[in-house]
Amino acid sequence: MTNSTEAKPIVKLNHLLGLDGISREAITEILDSADTFLGVLERPIPKVPSLRGVTVANFFFENSTRTKISFELAEKRMSADTISFATSGSSVSKGETLLDTVRNIEAMKIDVVVIRHSASGAPRFLADRIESAVINAGDGQHEHPTQGLLDMMTLRRKVGRLEGLNVLILGDIAHSRVARSNIHGLLAMGANVKVCGPATLMPRDIETLGAEPIFDLDEGLEWCDAVNVLRLQLERQKSGEIPSLREYNRTFGLTRARLERLTKEIVVMHPGPMNRGVEIDSDVADGPYSVILNQVTHGVAVRMAVLYLISGRERFVE
Amino acid sequence: MTNSTEAKPIVKLNHLLGLDGISREAITEILDSADTFLGVLERPIPKVPSLRGVTVANFFFENSTRTKISFELAEKRMSADTISFATSGSSVSKGETLLDTVRNIEAMKIDVVVIRHSASGAPRFLADRIESAVINAGDGQHEHPTQGLLDMMTLRRKVGRLEGLNVLILGDIAHSRVARSNIHGLLAMGANVKVCGPATLMPRDIETLGAEPIFDLDEGLEWCDAVNVLRLQLERQKSGEIPSLREYNRTFGLTRARLERLTKEIVVMHPGPMNRGVEIDSDVADGPYSVILNQVTHGVAVRMAVLYLISGRERFVE
Amino acid sequence: MTNSTEAKPIVKLNHLLGLDGISREAITEILDSADTFLGVLERPIPKVPSLRGVTVANFFFENSTRTKISFELAEKRMSADTISFATSGSSVSKGETLLDTVRNIEAMKIDVVVIRHSASGAPRFLADRIESAVINAGDGQHEHPTQGLLDMMTLRRKVGRLEGLNVLILGDIAHSRVARSNIHGLLAMGANVKVCGPATLMPRDIETLGAEPIFDLDEGLEWCDAVNVLRLQLERQKSGEIPSLREYNRTFGLTRARLERLTKEIVVMHPGPMNRGVEIDSDVADGPYSVILNQVTHGVAVRMAVLYLISGRERFVE
Repeated sequence: MTNSTEAKPIVKLNHLLGLDGISREAITEILDSADTFLGVLERPIPKVPSLRGVTVANFFFENSTRTKISFELAEKRMSADTISFATSGSSVSKGETLLDTVRNIEAMKIDVVVIRHSASGAPRFLADRIESAVINAGDGQHEHPTQGLLDMMTLRRKVGRLEGLNVLILGDIAHSRVARSNIHGLLAMGANVKVCGPATLMPRDIETLGAEPIFDLDEGLEWCDAVNVLRLQLERQKSGEIPSLREYNRTFGLTRARLERLTKEIVVMHPGPMNRGVEIDSDVADGPYSVILNQVTHGVAVRMAVLYLISGRERFVE
Repeated sequence: MTNSTEAKPIVKLNHLLGLDGISREAITEILDSADTFLGVLERPIPKVPSLRGVTVANFFFENSTRTKISFELAEKRMSADTISFATSGSSVSKGETLLDTVRNIEAMKIDVVVIRHSASGAPRFLADRIESAVINAGDGQHEHPTQGLLDMMTLRRKVGRLEGLNVLILGDIAHSRVARSNIHGLLAMGANVKVCGPATLMPRDIETLGAEPIFDLDEGLEWCDAVNVLRLQLERQKSGEIPSLREYNRTFGLTRARLERLTKEIVVMHPGPMNRGVEIDSDVADGPYSVILNQVTHGVAVRMAVLYLISGRERFVE
Repeated sequence: MTNSTEAKPIVKLNHLLGLDGISREAITEILDSADTFLGVLERPIPKVPSLRGVTVANFFFENSTRTKISFELAEKRMSADTISFATSGSSVSKGETLLDTVRNIEAMKIDVVVIRHSASGAPRFLADRIESAVINAGDGQHEHPTQGLLDMMTLRRKVGRLEGLNVLILGDIAHSRVARSNIHGLLAMGANVKVCGPATLMPRDIETLGAEPIFDLDEGLEWCDAVNVLRLQLERQKSGEIPSLREYNRTFGLTRARLERLTKEIVVMHPGPMNRGVEIDSDVADGPYSVILNQVTHGVAVRMAVLYLISGRERFVE
């Protein structure tokens, strides 16, 4: 990438709260930047000074390993100063409101807040009330936009395009913020999306999102170019929403047998962490069509791109 | 600030254990430095190399969000290397003595130890036994000197002086390290201090501290130029020290009605986190006389100043 | 140290999983490097750019204060980017396999993984499956190689040599990864090792490790030049493996009375954290022959050396 004025971002992000309503131009800008940052990650010293002096606070009000680490790595590789904390040990347990916590963070002159929260809408609530830029790292059953972006980045790099691509999202659609962000993003990019899973885990309003439901997995696989397998929350079994894990695997699990029955190759994705032997079999997860580890790598690059576009810095690669 | 020799600090701090006994000269030096660092925080890249190569360990043996983050930010903005840990996960749970833990830290060549501990006197205990500089980030019901300093910084910036100022401290005086540090510091600076709260939460020896007790809040508000509202520990209710939260709010809560009854404007402070609707009402906390968020901002600047004066580095702004 | 080509390490470490089978040449190289890094730690600004751009992930699946901090300090003093996490809050609790967790870390282009785990063999399991370099920070009852190295560094600096030295390891040998790493390392360096402790805490295969068991502590002390006192896990009492802590102290505790009965001086080591009054008395721990705090200091230097040799960088001191 050159440092010429052409390198200036076209799209200025104020926040990244979700992919619902985001333009194709903005997604393209993020994915193009992420491709550039992927090149940075492959350098012997994968570090750029883009965010030097920018302070990023990572608020994780919900457990996470990989998303938190992925953000922290993206921040450190851009030379940001980072502050991280998880729920335990925070003054949340002292009964302070979310708003007070974040107002305080803002008064400490923090530039960017990355927030994961179990309440859908928490990032929006903050963004409406504070000056700092807000990045949603997953909120309730609402959205997980950087996951949607990294899934699209992975597909675009694997297949070469998103336009016209048939993508099947498989699993617990009703409770999945990953599904929602993928549907919004993929449709904006001109892909076709269908969703597949047990009727008990299918949202009633799924058609209004623009994704057609399919209840037969083999039919879905025949249709699609790529399948994005969602993690099954194992507590669904206790709540009676699925009969048993074995039964789930038999009906909706991505097994090698199913893939071998197809007359074509499809791309296999999973946002992780996987329940091997439940929603996906090990030999599929580790098999030749899986791009699951690529997704993880691309996650860092996508987060670097989002941080860059949000920080408003004009040059990001020296 | 210039880099001339005049910029050398007059006061060399070895430790910051409390404001009891500290000189007016030392407080003035810290507050003047903090004003300079506040200017640093307002730069596009709020970072100085003052503590490059200095290692600071943040020991939080008691929960804290804002104080811990405030110290970490101050350290990172001065380019220190930081190590942080909270009680859980520390070898404290393995039964090691506090002294052994800290001796080990010292043997690792750590320059500055920031410590919060539930035992009054823990920072002094350490300072007497180790070579590293010790900063008290709150010990039991004893002192919280950086809170006292940031409160004074906020007042001095808002009103222009501390000398002769009438400051009311409101709430649970008996259990408050914030109250103690404020009383010691304000008196050293020539301010007048009165304290107000229920008799059950008033220390018997309050007069010996130099602060006169008042049991009628309206009388106290009439007298003061500024009121510092302490957080009420909600467990005081269970222990029977206060009748009920509603009753507490009615008698000692800072409400808009009370402020509107006054014939003058007073400055409203709170160290946070707030119990909105208990010791302070939301429209006061967020109202025009509140400097509560300024306190948070000033906290980072004050901690930078203390770290700078303790590190003994001569130049702190490049 | 010069930057000439002679400074290149002779030994290239791929991983550091244990001291079992490591060559005398490799240990010597690490200890020589550690001596150099100890000099770095004594500089006014104890920081070198050796690992700039290298990312190190610290995985602590088991509680630790000092080992975690020691590694983090070593990494920061070499200018590495570090990511740390402990079990709580990790996706391990979501049922993900250790391998999946680490594959994800690897996909994030992390160069070095430092891992502590309650399962013996966990570091080896990872090293066999991922590209990143793996450093064992303690695995089950298997090995704790950086502890063994820092113990040897301390002895070598104190006495001047390891060859021919008589070292007694005292305490719960059966459950101690520290004992195992010391035995392997010391024997490789030509030292003689005997082990002493209650029969209930002596492994049956101890002779096959090359260390002779002694059940009388005074006899062991008469024989040795240095004694390495292991931490007693206090839960051994509940399990009935030791009669009582008082009885343990009387029979196997390192007391001043015992040391004063000797006709010579011996070096006293302990890996910490200590149970003062159980396996070691306070006046021994803090006495003139104790090198316990030196061990802590040397721990940082040894870990810097290991990180340097594993990173494969040719110049480590500017």
